[in-house]
Amino acid sequence: MNGTKTNPGNFFEDFTVGQVIQHATPRTVTEGDRAVYGSLYPTRFAIPSSAAFAASVGLAPHPVEELIAFHIAFGKTVPDVSLNAVANLGYAELRFHQPVVPGDTLSTSSEVIGLKQNSNGKSGVVYVRSTAVNQRGEVALAWARWVMVHKRDVDAPAPEAVVPELASVVAPADLVIPAGLNFGSYDVAAAGSPHRWDDYTVGEKIDHVDGVTLTDTEHQLATRLWQNTAKVHFNVEARPDGNRLIYGGHIISMARALSYNGLANAQIIAAINAGAHTSPAFAGNTVYAWSEVLDKAETSVPSVGALRLRLVATKGRDESMTLKGADEKYAEGVLLDLDYWALIPR
Amino acid sequence: MNGTKTNPGNFFEDFTVGQVIQHATPRTVTEGDRAVYGSLYPTRFAIPSSAAFAASVGLAPHPVEELIAFHIAFGKTVPDVSLNAVANLGYAELRFHQPVVPGDTLSTSSEVIGLKQNSNGKSGVVYVRSTAVNQRGEVALAWARWVMVHKRDVDAPAPEAVVPELASVVAPADLVIPAGLNFGSYDVAAAGSPHRWDDYTVGEKIDHVDGVTLTDTEHQLATRLWQNTAKVHFNVEARPDGNRLIYGGHIISMARALSYNGLANAQIIAAINAGAHTSPAFAGNTVYAWSEVLDKAETSVPSVGALRLRLVATKGRDESMTLKGADEKYAEGVLLDLDYWALIPR
Amino acid sequence: MNGTKTNPGNFFEDFTVGQVIQHATPRTVTEGDRAVYGSLYPTRFAIPSSAAFAASVGLAPHPVEELIAFHIAFGKTVPDVSLNAVANLGYAELRFHQPVVPGDTLSTSSEVIGLKQNSNGKSGVVYVRSTAVNQRGEVALAWARWVMVHKRDVDAPAPEAVVPELASVVAPADLVIPAGLNFGSYDVAAAGSPHRWDDYTVGEKIDHVDGVTLTDTEHQLATRLWQNTAKVHFNVEARPDGNRLIYGGHIISMARALSYNGLANAQIIAAINAGAHTSPAFAGNTVYAWSEVLDKAETSVPSVGALRLRLVATKGRDESMTLKGADEKYAEGVLLDLDYWALIPR
Repeated sequence: MNGTKTNPGNFFEDFTVGQVIQHATPRTVTEGDRAVYGSLYPTRFAIPSSAAFAASVGLAPHPVEELIAFHIAFGKTVPDVSLNAVANLGYAELRFHQPVVPGDTLSTSSEVIGLKQNSNGKSGVVYVRSTAVNQRGEVALAWARWVMVHKRDVDAPAPEAVVPELASVVAPADLVIPAGLNFGSYDVAAAGSPHRWDDYTVGEKIDHVDGVTLTDTEHQLATRLWQNTAKVHFNVEARPDGNRLIYGGHIISMARALSYNGLANAQIIAAINAGAHTSPAFAGNTVYAWSEVLDKAETSVPSVGALRLRLVATKGRDESMTLKGADEKYAEGVLLDLDYWALIPR
Repeated sequence: MNGTKTNPGNFFEDFTVGQVIQHATPRTVTEGDRAVYGSLYPTRFAIPSSAAFAASVGLAPHPVEELIAFHIAFGKTVPDVSLNAVANLGYAELRFHQPVVPGDTLSTSSEVIGLKQNSNGKSGVVYVRSTAVNQRGEVALAWARWVMVHKRDVDAPAPEAVVPELASVVAPADLVIPAGLNFGSYDVAAAGSPHRWDDYTVGEKIDHVDGVTLTDTEHQLATRLWQNTAKVHFNVEARPDGNRLIYGGHIISMARALSYNGLANAQIIAAINAGAHTSPAFAGNTVYAWSEVLDKAETSVPSVGALRLRLVATKGRDESMTLKGADEKYAEGVLLDLDYWALIPR
Repeated sequence: MNGTKTNPGNFFEDFTVGQVIQHATPRTVTEGDRAVYGSLYPTRFAIPSSAAFAASVGLAPHPVEELIAFHIAFGKTVPDVSLNAVANLGYAELRFHQPVVPGDTLSTSSEVIGLKQNSNGKSGVVYVRSTAVNQRGEVALAWARWVMVHKRDVDAPAPEAVVPELASVVAPADLVIPAGLNFGSYDVAAAGSPHRWDDYTVGEKIDHVDGVTLTDTEHQLATRLWQNTAKVHFNVEARPDGNRLIYGGHIISMARALSYNGLANAQIIAAINAGAHTSPAFAGNTVYAWSEVLDKAETSVPSVGALRLRLVATKGRDESMTLKGADEKYAEGVLLDLDYWALIPR
């Protein structure tokens, strides 16, 4: 018989609460990933850019950007969790447990923590908690995610609805400060900005000014690098409009890199509280970003502060930095609304 | 005098049987090559993806994909062998003699093993046997290839015709199993598929389902990475239609990567028996792949089996998996017909 | 207050003679940079291509191309020196003081060595001397550069004009020969050309024959890799014509790589005497290159000679290799006029 050896992905009725899925394929992070990432995004944060700077704040060997670890760990879940997804609905409780360095091999597994069939009977929401471990079995990062997934058979019975309670924000006390991190002798000139934790105030917004026009090749390079297999990103025949959909992780990384201009010292992403891809992006769109300081917190390390930031990517620049209109819907042009904790010198 | 220092390439009458050509330039393989390759092709085979997985099957240091070694070794021959080629006619007897790992430096030389002028007197077929060695002088891979090459001067006398006998398939007993390879404790969950050697039957066909739409930038990045200088891939002024011709090696790597979905455990390419680029591809084409199991063999290592596979790349998906029409010509849309041996756990 | 944390760049009146600017962000060079560079440019020079070849001429660990070091070091100066530039007017006195190898971290600082307001009162010329040091504080390369920069306020008073004297060419005695370099057992077959120092004559011109058609993605990948932030390269909304301007460093690297075909043994760039980007380039242009031997010199190492070369990039091939017309203006299609010293075996 032909064709039975390919992966059709899981449908809604294939998931059961408590099920644990070990995702293929383990992936070793290398200095090559850092270089390709640097060619795709205009990132200039001093820690991932410079081994010498990283060592000066206590981080050696030289960590890669947290988003490299996130994209790799996340990409592994796609063939099993979201190949038949209608929509990626959200993330929560993402924490980085330790820096990832070249030579580390990441493997991801997911536990199904919730299921809720939609009232139309054609699809349902799947909640998973995913954990990426390194070659020593230590947790590198973990997060919750929920996606709407098609049913294979609309007549399959609905499972008992289980909706997990997920925190709307990671508590500052739960942020993991990388072992050895010390911003005591932090070099602001090398980092590119004098603005420290004390200089940011809750409610402050920052227009990151710069824009980058998207190309199809670039997001395809990124998506493949993370071994993400969602076909709408690669195949013009997979969408009725004949356009490739820009991979959402590409927008996250682009916005994060653009945020250097205004947040150069927000060096390390410690947690992602929530994230929404609010509209699709395509080649030719020019992406800008702005940030809002949502909260501030001290951490267990006196030289290290935490900023809770909203990072917003927009199609075209919006100097008014408007997130939502009077109707409480996202303003036109908003592509991404990401809520995260960054570590910054005090 | 101007211009005499550039390489015009060899023409048919420049070759003599027995001639040995040492090709420039030696090239060191790095972790950067692995990353760029991973950004160009949707490859997920566990051995090249994960140093930890590779070590678990006895391969350390961490090998790169066999096709990286092939493209580099092959690219070196282009300026001397095929810069003035009309067509690349075929490969045979390609064997990988040992894994290539970052830090290895590959150098290629070729011996002319056959010559046959065409009846039109304007060109002829050149047969070469090429060998790539590493920095220790050990053979990494070797193969035979034949190309049709223009004559510089149509009045140059025809050489005596010498047509070498080349095997249509590498005998299983001649496959080199990498030293230390042992699939005894192979982790199918990490590798991404439960299907082992025993699960495949001769004659079985596998539709690899996924497609990737080609872009010019991507194949240009690949072609340059392998230091392949054939101008039709880079220069819109080099072809009357103003299109860049997609580099054939790009199609091979794309199809091999797509074949993961259905052949995830066919981890290692041990030999290439034959290969034909059956029609040209251009940016905008969407490439799909299917495979046929041509043969099966045991190897000298009990845990390691060999599958002889036909890998077919097509422009547009062909769920019927038709290689040739009733007229014995390749079906419309077939881009590549590659016959190879893969190593797979038993 | 919003928006005050982003970098607006310096305007003409922000510079003072004697001022020293420490540029962000230090950047570690990796094997990944070598691979991405190799995917962007058709470079085949044996020293950066092969660790084994480099070691055979006394260079270990394995240096990267000098232009990788140049682009990184130069990119750092952009946010502080040329973000508000009208035009990049020239380079001089660039010398490489030692090879850059993977693992080196480069930091750049600039001293303002001259200022001259334009007669229109709207802009002025800023002269800087920039120095890139490695993680040991040793100079890797240093150069002078002058750019025309906008005034923020046209009513700001003009500074006293200071115009530095810059050498039109680096004296051969000042070229730094990398420690240990010895071309005594140089392998011309591996390097790809038999032509040594003695084979080149002053006044000789070399048409490098090959052309590469530019794409937007490729120069964007390059520009980001070097952390160069000039927005005209990334953002179609930043220019009235809606085109991205190809990054000038992309043209330099493309022309240098193309020059391999005819100058394969001109292995190492020791100095750049002058450089002018004479017209803009855009995606779709096909770039060719030619060189002229301007001078020859012996060096302190008997096996190492120096060639002073003019490297010219053109849009479309110009087999006549015409630099300037009768009107002393650059001929149509000339994109780059670069004057440099290369080290080549004698």
